[in-house]
Amino acid sequence: MKKRLSLPEYRDGILSGNRVILSKAITLVESRLDSDQDLTASLIQEILPNTGKSIRIGITGVPGVGKSTFIEAFGKMLLDSGKKVAVLAVDPSSQLTKGSILGDKTRMESLATDKRAFIRPSPSGQTLGGVSNATRESMLLCEAAGFDVILVETVGVGQSETAVKNMVDFFLLLMLSGAGDELQGIKKGIMEMADGIVIHKADGDNLDLAKKAKTNYQNALHLFAASPKNWNPQVVLASSIAKTGLNQIWEMILSYQDQMIRNGFWEKNRAAQRLNWLDDQISYLLGQTFLKNPEVKKTLDSNRPKVESGDLNPGTLAKKLIKLVF
Amino acid sequence: MKKRLSLPEYRDGILSGNRVILSKAITLVESRLDSDQDLTASLIQEILPNTGKSIRIGITGVPGVGKSTFIEAFGKMLLDSGKKVAVLAVDPSSQLTKGSILGDKTRMESLATDKRAFIRPSPSGQTLGGVSNATRESMLLCEAAGFDVILVETVGVGQSETAVKNMVDFFLLLMLSGAGDELQGIKKGIMEMADGIVIHKADGDNLDLAKKAKTNYQNALHLFAASPKNWNPQVVLASSIAKTGLNQIWEMILSYQDQMIRNGFWEKNRAAQRLNWLDDQISYLLGQTFLKNPEVKKTLDSNRPKVESGDLNPGTLAKKLIKLVF
Repeated sequence: MKKRLSLPEYRDGILSGNRVILSKAITLVESRLDSDQDLTASLIQEILPNTGKSIRIGITGVPGVGKSTFIEAFGKMLLDSGKKVAVLAVDPSSQLTKGSILGDKTRMESLATDKRAFIRPSPSGQTLGGVSNATRESMLLCEAAGFDVILVETVGVGQSETAVKNMVDFFLLLMLSGAGDELQGIKKGIMEMADGIVIHKADGDNLDLAKKAKTNYQNALHLFAASPKNWNPQVVLASSIAKTGLNQIWEMILSYQDQMIRNGFWEKNRAAQRLNWLDDQISYLLGQTFLKNPEVKKTLDSNRPKVESGDLNPGTLAKKLIKLVF
Repeated sequence: MKKRLSLPEYRDGILSGNRVILSKAITLVESRLDSDQDLTASLIQEILPNTGKSIRIGITGVPGVGKSTFIEAFGKMLLDSGKKVAVLAVDPSSQLTKGSILGDKTRMESLATDKRAFIRPSPSGQTLGGVSNATRESMLLCEAAGFDVILVETVGVGQSETAVKNMVDFFLLLMLSGAGDELQGIKKGIMEMADGIVIHKADGDNLDLAKKAKTNYQNALHLFAASPKNWNPQVVLASSIAKTGLNQIWEMILSYQDQMIRNGFWEKNRAAQRLNWLDDQISYLLGQTFLKNPEVKKTLDSNRPKVESGDLNPGTLAKKLIKLVF
């Protein structure tokens, strides 16, 4: 077992903005050891009063849309305006590749070397449930350490978008112009989740196409029913190379925050997210604890092949396993 | 508690094709009473050797695409060719509306009154997990009762498609031509799951548009990577009023079955589905059993508001709850 700090050491280090201790605390949060998980729960509880003051922004888009360069340019602009920016990621695929999208820090070099920013790759070797839990807790730790903008990058395939949507205040979708409507269409289901759409790489020869794309997406957004929060998602052109549109995106997010605080959705959404997180934690920890039980493990291992071959009813085995514990 | 039959009465009734007893058995399967769930598990286990011989077909599409009229026309054609057809549904939304998509049987009048068909609405008042479990078990009961084609209708919004995809052999997506590309695009994420696409209502003035749509969808399908099962989804024009395309759809499904049996994917897919079902059953029953525990319930109820307000760490409460039992 790795050496751990004490609860007060973690807490005081984080609250004083010590980045080395913040990093160590996130490592703790990502651990699946029982003792680490107990310490994590106590730590999160202690720092809870110091959380919640940041703007949490989810960023998604298909691979190739330029999420890393966008986060670097957007994050740099925020730093220059005096914000403290943390970048986290939800990338359950890294359990396979062992390489997170943010693992290669050279891709965000100017952010990674900037003392005012904090970049943390997605935890690896975990299921989506594990990654989401760790990222939510890391987000709270970053807030307690004084970061006031949290960017959460999602890998842009599968279910990680829903996980990120459930932990952020604002969900930003990056799109490309001229990448072929069909290809973009694959991700159109995600459009319903977006609070804002960025047509990225809107520079040089791309600019005319990007303007057309903006009109198309704006029209497409009108097809969705008005959301209960009464917000019309905006479409913004941006270039991370030409550094255009970045301010406009930030203004859109601030105007969203302002409106949502006034109509009560901001806090309502966060309250709902906390309950959703509780459900996730219960089912994640419950499943994990259950499958760790030696009797359950033994019975499951010896009977799985019979279920696979169709000789044993899954419900019969499930009932049997549960009766071993309850 | 409602009156139940004995295990041999259910079993013998089902195996002899008694539809009244089949109905009663499905009611049993849908029950959430502990005693009913035990009886269900034993019943499914007993009839397991008599299951698996049907073709299981999932049918999805946005509301308004004409799923009911299609199922009626397609089902009728199958009946006339000598098949026994059962129609089930996965519609977790019925827990809110209390009215299932198939609840209004007049919408499938000619099927509903045909003795060779069996129609069962989606169980109501349950979560998606509950609905999926009940529908999978109902499917096995129908197979044991001698039905050789099972049509599973999904409501066409949210996550019910994935649930249905995970329980069927062939997944059929109904689309409309001329409904606006963007509107259709919302469901394009589903296209990746489809083994076949039907351009529905391809009749009268619609026919030209439908032909164009067919070309578009065929091109769009090429954008997806070839699936491990080595099948190219086909796009078929059909009209439930003009009764066109129905035979072609059935031939597509039979040709799929033939290919998949030969390349081994048919059984491989079913084996994977059984293991997936086991996982679902474990997590569904585990959560249900856990939350029924009086101590867990009491602690959860008294602490949920503190999580909602942000004063209590969800992970701390989850750990505390789990330690009450384990």
